[in-house]
Amino acid sequence: MRPPLAARAAALRPSVVREQTAAAGRRPLLSLSGGLPPPEAFPTEALAAAAERLLGSGDPSVLQYAATDGDPRLLDLVGEDLRGRLRIDADVLVTTGSQQALDLVGKVLLDPGDVAVVECPTYVGALRALAAYQPTFVSIPVDRDGMDTAALEEHLVRGLRPKLCYVVPNFSNPSGACLSAARRVHLAELSDRYGFLVVEDDPYGQLRFTGEDIAPVASIGGEVLYLGSFSKVVVPGFRVGYAAGRSWLLAPLGLAKQASDLNTTSFGQRLIVELLTTDGWLDAHLAGLRSLYGAKAAALLGALDDRFQVAPPEGGMFLWASTEVDALALTDACMALDVAIVPGSEFALVPGYERDIRLSFSVLAVDELAEGARRIGEALTSLQ
Amino acid sequence: MRPPLAARAAALRPSVVREQTAAAGRRPLLSLSGGLPPPEAFPTEALAAAAERLLGSGDPSVLQYAATDGDPRLLDLVGEDLRGRLRIDADVLVTTGSQQALDLVGKVLLDPGDVAVVECPTYVGALRALAAYQPTFVSIPVDRDGMDTAALEEHLVRGLRPKLCYVVPNFSNPSGACLSAARRVHLAELSDRYGFLVVEDDPYGQLRFTGEDIAPVASIGGEVLYLGSFSKVVVPGFRVGYAAGRSWLLAPLGLAKQASDLNTTSFGQRLIVELLTTDGWLDAHLAGLRSLYGAKAAALLGALDDRFQVAPPEGGMFLWASTEVDALALTDACMALDVAIVPGSEFALVPGYERDIRLSFSVLAVDELAEGARRIGEALTSLQ
Repeated sequence: MRPPLAARAAALRPSVVREQTAAAGRRPLLSLSGGLPPPEAFPTEALAAAAERLLGSGDPSVLQYAATDGDPRLLDLVGEDLRGRLRIDADVLVTTGSQQALDLVGKVLLDPGDVAVVECPTYVGALRALAAYQPTFVSIPVDRDGMDTAALEEHLVRGLRPKLCYVVPNFSNPSGACLSAARRVHLAELSDRYGFLVVEDDPYGQLRFTGEDIAPVASIGGEVLYLGSFSKVVVPGFRVGYAAGRSWLLAPLGLAKQASDLNTTSFGQRLIVELLTTDGWLDAHLAGLRSLYGAKAAALLGALDDRFQVAPPEGGMFLWASTEVDALALTDACMALDVAIVPGSEFALVPGYERDIRLSFSVLAVDELAEGARRIGEALTSLQ
Repeated sequence: MRPPLAARAAALRPSVVREQTAAAGRRPLLSLSGGLPPPEAFPTEALAAAAERLLGSGDPSVLQYAATDGDPRLLDLVGEDLRGRLRIDADVLVTTGSQQALDLVGKVLLDPGDVAVVECPTYVGALRALAAYQPTFVSIPVDRDGMDTAALEEHLVRGLRPKLCYVVPNFSNPSGACLSAARRVHLAELSDRYGFLVVEDDPYGQLRFTGEDIAPVASIGGEVLYLGSFSKVVVPGFRVGYAAGRSWLLAPLGLAKQASDLNTTSFGQRLIVELLTTDGWLDAHLAGLRSLYGAKAAALLGALDDRFQVAPPEGGMFLWASTEVDALALTDACMALDVAIVPGSEFALVPGYERDIRLSFSVLAVDELAEGARRIGEALTSLQ
């Protein structure tokens, strides 16, 4: 005889993108679906040298339980980077990927029915994490300058009182858009005025291959929890990210983390510390990544059929394209040609994205991207 | 202006043991407080060789995102071990330490006010994990044969309807007790009859240094989620554990895990796979651990003042001792002599444990354990 599941269990749903990505691994397919860093982006040799140093050092702490808030060396490095590069002065909590930070934010902030504002389209992993705490989601549309903060303000003026507002400010997954500088200032003002938390999730900020960096919301004002990740800058396989914010929030997030997994892998944290403290390594590695993703984005953009409307991304891994046909039908037609794409509606809680698709250019090689784009055009033709 | 925290945030509390353990790292102290594997238990050389093989293999999947339910090689090895050694036939989900499994169980099973039965004394990390989901805890006393299942049955007969019952069946943290074979059968029967989940948390089961193995509840009957961990058998620093149970529960646990951290570190999982597939490694390593902990337990037991009543443990890392004095005062008196112990009340939700202490014999060397025991006796004398 089984006990019944909790009410919140009904809110748990799988990520279609993750399932499709897993499926893609099982057959020969040109995959523009998952937002994975490609193998050539992995600093494998530097990690091998770092692992050899750490395991040969005789320091057992690299394999031991660690402090819940993170390895002190990594906390120092992250704090320094935040203060220097991003002008963010905040406490830091290491998390098991940014994904864990999203779960912890939901855990400490959301009662059932609380309002969580999200971009539309938005990162489905954030929806999945927050949904477990049964909030009411309010979707705010995204354009080429990111979330339409004027639309958000209209909601607030009419009485909406969110607990939090989730944004991916740079090269958003899935839209590829950057939140403009003016809108960042506006969002910080709205946070101050209406008392909600901005969750600023920035895994792609260091992957800008054209244009100028824009200061993060967390450096401007408002109540902001800034999330960073080493998944795209080092490797995803260690599951190391971090949350930076004020102590009123970091303290309960730390308690919730302790209850959730005690601490993030000490060995993974120390491997990252080894890389970050290798003179010149990070700058050289980031330069390589930017060049790599810039070339891939250019290859996809250059080969994509001009029946697609596209906003060229300035960084990151994603490109959002609008078409004249139903995106689900296009996805099927692409799959018949062994090309994986994701329909835009997968990233939206409201209608209006039925003719959009998300293309990731991170995994495939330049020539594969061109061939993928050609087949997507062929699939489009088959539907017109 | 800050948004208010969720109601459940009030239920989050830190682990005193973890704080004390962290503090212990900052001064010279004989620590019998934390349940850490000692550095000499770490297979550092085997891990160094495994890391070199994996990072030299050219296989990028060791550093990539992984499937949420776990690396397929590790799932196979765990499944085989469960079926062979423990006679458990179940689905497996890899978790970020057993701690994550406890959090996920709470997440998918507990609505506020649901009853969670726990041993008393019990593992505080389980209380912390489950407390976030605001259950009503019911404590069942533990004796030398583990949880008093007859006392649990009385509650059930009188109408108690728990969602789950949490037990550490082997060398329990903190009591050191083993749940007897008869009580395991009884607990499985009660689970079947009253429809609750048994969460059988078994991180220490392979660390038996005397006596005979007892079959797990999960091999007998009832609805059981069996939790295993590589933290004590390999290293804690990878944060790799697993949950084994039936698909009605494993499926929502997997969805909750995906929302919580996408997947457990792929590199850590693969390092463990390398060790487990090295011919003869596991048996030799476990033999070494059993001998190590057996010698340490004997050293502590042999040196401990006979004013303490102690049940000699047959495995694991912990020893429970009862005294004639207040355990908080004894803890302070020990600390004044640079010895860290944990008062029993820390592990109990109800009164009755004010004269008990938990001693961990895992970290200190044999001569340090003897010296620690001597000072504990001195502290006891100072209070009488």
